[in-house]
Amino acid sequence: MSGQTTMSNDLKSKFMQVYDSLKCELIHEPPFEFDDDSRQWVERMLDYNVLGGKLNRCFTVVESYKLLKGDELTADEFFLACALGWCTEWLQACFLVFDDIVDDSHIRRGQPCWFRLPEVGMAAVNDGIILRNHIHKILKKHFRGKAYYVDLLDLFNEVEFQLASGQMIDVVTTLVGEKDLSKYSWSIHRRIAEYKTSYGSFYIPVACALLMYGENLDDHVQVKDILVEMGIYFQVQDDYFDTFADPNVTGKIGTDIEEFKCSWLVLKALELANEEQKKLLHGVFEDYENKTHEKLIKLIESHPSKALQAVLKSFLGKIYKRQK
Amino acid sequence: MSGQTTMSNDLKSKFMQVYDSLKCELIHEPPFEFDDDSRQWVERMLDYNVLGGKLNRCFTVVESYKLLKGDELTADEFFLACALGWCTEWLQACFLVFDDIVDDSHIRRGQPCWFRLPEVGMAAVNDGIILRNHIHKILKKHFRGKAYYVDLLDLFNEVEFQLASGQMIDVVTTLVGEKDLSKYSWSIHRRIAEYKTSYGSFYIPVACALLMYGENLDDHVQVKDILVEMGIYFQVQDDYFDTFADPNVTGKIGTDIEEFKCSWLVLKALELANEEQKKLLHGVFEDYENKTHEKLIKLIESHPSKALQAVLKSFLGKIYKRQK
Repeated sequence: MSGQTTMSNDLKSKFMQVYDSLKCELIHEPPFEFDDDSRQWVERMLDYNVLGGKLNRCFTVVESYKLLKGDELTADEFFLACALGWCTEWLQACFLVFDDIVDDSHIRRGQPCWFRLPEVGMAAVNDGIILRNHIHKILKKHFRGKAYYVDLLDLFNEVEFQLASGQMIDVVTTLVGEKDLSKYSWSIHRRIAEYKTSYGSFYIPVACALLMYGENLDDHVQVKDILVEMGIYFQVQDDYFDTFADPNVTGKIGTDIEEFKCSWLVLKALELANEEQKKLLHGVFEDYENKTHEKLIKLIESHPSKALQAVLKSFLGKIYKRQK
Repeated sequence: MSGQTTMSNDLKSKFMQVYDSLKCELIHEPPFEFDDDSRQWVERMLDYNVLGGKLNRCFTVVESYKLLKGDELTADEFFLACALGWCTEWLQACFLVFDDIVDDSHIRRGQPCWFRLPEVGMAAVNDGIILRNHIHKILKKHFRGKAYYVDLLDLFNEVEFQLASGQMIDVVTTLVGEKDLSKYSWSIHRRIAEYKTSYGSFYIPVACALLMYGENLDDHVQVKDILVEMGIYFQVQDDYFDTFADPNVTGKIGTDIEEFKCSWLVLKALELANEEQKKLLHGVFEDYENKTHEKLIKLIESHPSKALQAVLKSFLGKIYKRQK
């Protein structure tokens, strides 16, 4: 299985239809009369920030729900799963806008960060809030009557907290680390990865599918733990790409080293100090990747439900040995 | 009745006890193990941004609930009303942190804006998200079992949207207004005031009290309308203070004119162009204040419920002829 599983164009265009419909609802919402200038601003802001990713979150919600159901989705189910997928993309967009400001980044998904546009600047902060708030609008409009509505709200709030906490530990650690690199540790690295990546990119799409399928998330701690592990693996890949990957492939320029980020790389480099390191790091990374894959497969196969095993394996397949 | 109604010190210290207890829960929450550095960061950030206001929102929730109930509160009711009051203060703190970044402000409540502190900078953006998220944590911990829990979540989301939309219209209007002052209009001014002030400072504390009292907010459109009017009045006072008030009294330095803000003042100044304006403006403002007071009293007295009349009059009394 390779990391290059690509979505069919047909599926992608179905996702885009749902996006267009959600966007249309948001900018033409009757109780709030946008003027034309504001409507254009929001529309452009959404296209700029919500789109441009790989839509893996959307795909994961839909795919996971299908695997749980064990059958094709009805049109209604597809729309709802897809809307939840878009909610997770919206959440991601919100944090990309915020994190780029906090990290003073320049490039995101191959284009200037939103706040770098001269007419946007710090108004991007407000756009981040609007992105976050849109999730509630989408949920309220399409899920208010569902038994799991309140669980969805709690889920998005919980994940928002984890994302923000990851960023906070990152900031606080970086402040301390600038003065004293020895403050970095594996446990801090793990927590930053867990909070910044696992919940928002791995846990939440599967959790959405579980809620929609009528499950209680309290019964799925094991699934959560496996997804958290997967997210940490993904973050290690990202740290590695930050230094070694071609910006033309990843669409961003790494700044972790300049910014004293507590990344996998800094940690490994510290352990291996005073040696010719580049080659070694490549080997260490490959080894890490193989062992992690093995460990995750074992964890997944220990899960009692075949359907959930399929959900998790499909997800793992999408990131194993990915190039970007 | 004067705008200088002060809270008793006793009541203020009871509010502070609840604040301490909420803060303690938030920074010692078991599922998320903060390290000491992060805990200290959050604690300082809360004290810096949530405190320092006049606690009018807290006061309004508690006072409104008492007037609705027509009796003294039990200890439990006091705690809950007060916790809701603090949620509205948290929401305010969140938007002050964000708005100060967007507006590039310097001083807030008599001290440097949070993001101006050298060790904070743009990490303030993340703190804003944490402030926002704390509201959900407080609500979840203390209201998850209540019938009105989901309505509280919807209310805070709705008001967040209105605050962010107010800021957005302000930003978009200011961008356009820099090039063409004639784009400003009374209807835009009214909408900015409505969205930036009315909902977050006037509507939400009363709405919290109504929900806690078991009311359905859909039945209280008239109350909402009156509170929106009150908020607009309050915003006009603020615009006026922005230019004429002593920064030592208001705790901030006005920048509306430099920033081409669509404020009451700019609008009035445009109408009165080429005259000696200062004196005139003072008179116009006094006249506006008297007429608005009269109009609001009339609106309030047309409400069928004596208890709600009392809620609204008590609120109006707190802002009429205020000095800051």
